[in-house]
Amino acid sequence: VLNNLNKLKKDNTGYDLKNMFIGAEGTLGIITAAVLRLVPRPRSVELAVFGVPSVQAAVDLLGLAYERAGAHVTSFELMTRMNVELALRYIEGTRDPLDAPHPWYVLMELSSQAESGLRDLIETIFEAGVERGLIADGTIAETLEQAKAMWRIREEAGEVQKREGGSIKHDVSVPVAAIPAFIAEASAAAVAIVPGARPMPFGHVGDGNIHYNVSQPPGMDKAAFMAREEDVQRAVFDVVAKCGGSISAEHGIGIAKREWLPRVKDPVALSLMRALKATLDPNGILNPGKVL
Amino acid sequence: VLNNLNKLKKDNTGYDLKNMFIGAEGTLGIITAAVLRLVPRPRSVELAVFGVPSVQAAVDLLGLAYERAGAHVTSFELMTRMNVELALRYIEGTRDPLDAPHPWYVLMELSSQAESGLRDLIETIFEAGVERGLIADGTIAETLEQAKAMWRIREEAGEVQKREGGSIKHDVSVPVAAIPAFIAEASAAAVAIVPGARPMPFGHVGDGNIHYNVSQPPGMDKAAFMAREEDVQRAVFDVVAKCGGSISAEHGIGIAKREWLPRVKDPVALSLMRALKATLDPNGILNPGKVL
Repeated sequence: VLNNLNKLKKDNTGYDLKNMFIGAEGTLGIITAAVLRLVPRPRSVELAVFGVPSVQAAVDLLGLAYERAGAHVTSFELMTRMNVELALRYIEGTRDPLDAPHPWYVLMELSSQAESGLRDLIETIFEAGVERGLIADGTIAETLEQAKAMWRIREEAGEVQKREGGSIKHDVSVPVAAIPAFIAEASAAAVAIVPGARPMPFGHVGDGNIHYNVSQPPGMDKAAFMAREEDVQRAVFDVVAKCGGSISAEHGIGIAKREWLPRVKDPVALSLMRALKATLDPNGILNPGKVL
Repeated sequence: VLNNLNKLKKDNTGYDLKNMFIGAEGTLGIITAAVLRLVPRPRSVELAVFGVPSVQAAVDLLGLAYERAGAHVTSFELMTRMNVELALRYIEGTRDPLDAPHPWYVLMELSSQAESGLRDLIETIFEAGVERGLIADGTIAETLEQAKAMWRIREEAGEVQKREGGSIKHDVSVPVAAIPAFIAEASAAAVAIVPGARPMPFGHVGDGNIHYNVSQPPGMDKAAFMAREEDVQRAVFDVVAKCGGSISAEHGIGIAKREWLPRVKDPVALSLMRALKATLDPNGILNPGKVL
């Protein structure tokens, strides 16, 4: 039993054992307790939906938001028009957030400990974004209800895709600057494999973390579409590799991606992981069959 | 050669190899390249010196600052009156930052990407701190010159102690809430070993990281004082252990603290560190004689 339970922000007495166990999916040990740091609840929050002309515009808008608002930028989510349309179709009470349709949308949230000043800040970013051609249209939530309605479109992305039939999913990350190229190339590759397939990427631009999900063509047999899953995944993961990305940004490896790992991971990293596994779990009893 | 050079914020494809090498002081491998993230330079910075009645008041003031200013709090440094007095004595051009002397001082810096609003924020914290009895007096820098002069007192802390004779140093961290008890108990312990010794702790309150340095009594032979170094360190490290702290917050173990490590580190953590060392460096050729 390793007792690593402390409340320290800085500790340089040897190797960083904590981070070795985080993300190891129980294959190096079982975490039985954790120390969590609490932060004060924000005093003010502002939320906006922006219609943007391209993924590049969304990435540039994130740069603008960081430049003006720094750590106040607490969410920056990318969505497609398809995401909005499916929400309008399947989720009761959904409204189109802007008057006209846009190919891409950004959901941006700012938070602050200060009671005032945040509304001015989000308006400044909105204006500068329009001036630079990064925002075609937008709206700032005036009430908590409006904010919840905006979030709902994003949060139901997985649900609406399920209602639309088969979906081939990827939880990937790439360098933030590579997001536009990644989405363009992955979409071209997916559609080349299944003509009519409908990419519906969404996710966390600031983390470079895109849930690159592809819906089946309308009317296609779901099983026939899902039979192409491995081909589509291989093509998407090839683009991820080309961009210097990761095939698992936040979901982990588990069983589902275990076979993929040796195909995408640096062989030296993989052999080091195996050596660590053998050192900490010589009898192979910790979550066997997962990750490695 | 492990190529772990990527630009990803999120990557959950296996074990966190990066953090294993950071802080290992070259005993597990040699880092030859790193990816650094750049952040925009702040558009506005405000700096204040507060005279505070106690270490507890400084810790409570940090809580107040986080509550009001969140991530804008970019520095929060604790200093003693002795630190100010030695700076006045040894560093040319130093001025007493406040009209009357105070037992403790806090140097607080706020930074923001916004062009305006920060002055109001620091004044709000100042006012609230005075109302709650956490601040006895204070001043906000009006010019860059004033800010530099305030920083200089803090930054010359090591230098002025050197001029004052022998100094027994500790780079420790404790939970932030335990800082007041740590400083009180460590000081009592140090003075019990060397009557007349003068503790001059300073450092980074938000990190719980105190440079707990003890100056020799005036007029005592320097060598006689330094001969008590191990006794004083043992007493201080005992208080650190009691507070759930670390004997090396940021300086590392190297050679200087290598003998201390087995006395303060959890034996399971230490044996795990040795197992990792044996796995990655079976021939013991990587920075031998350091850390372990």
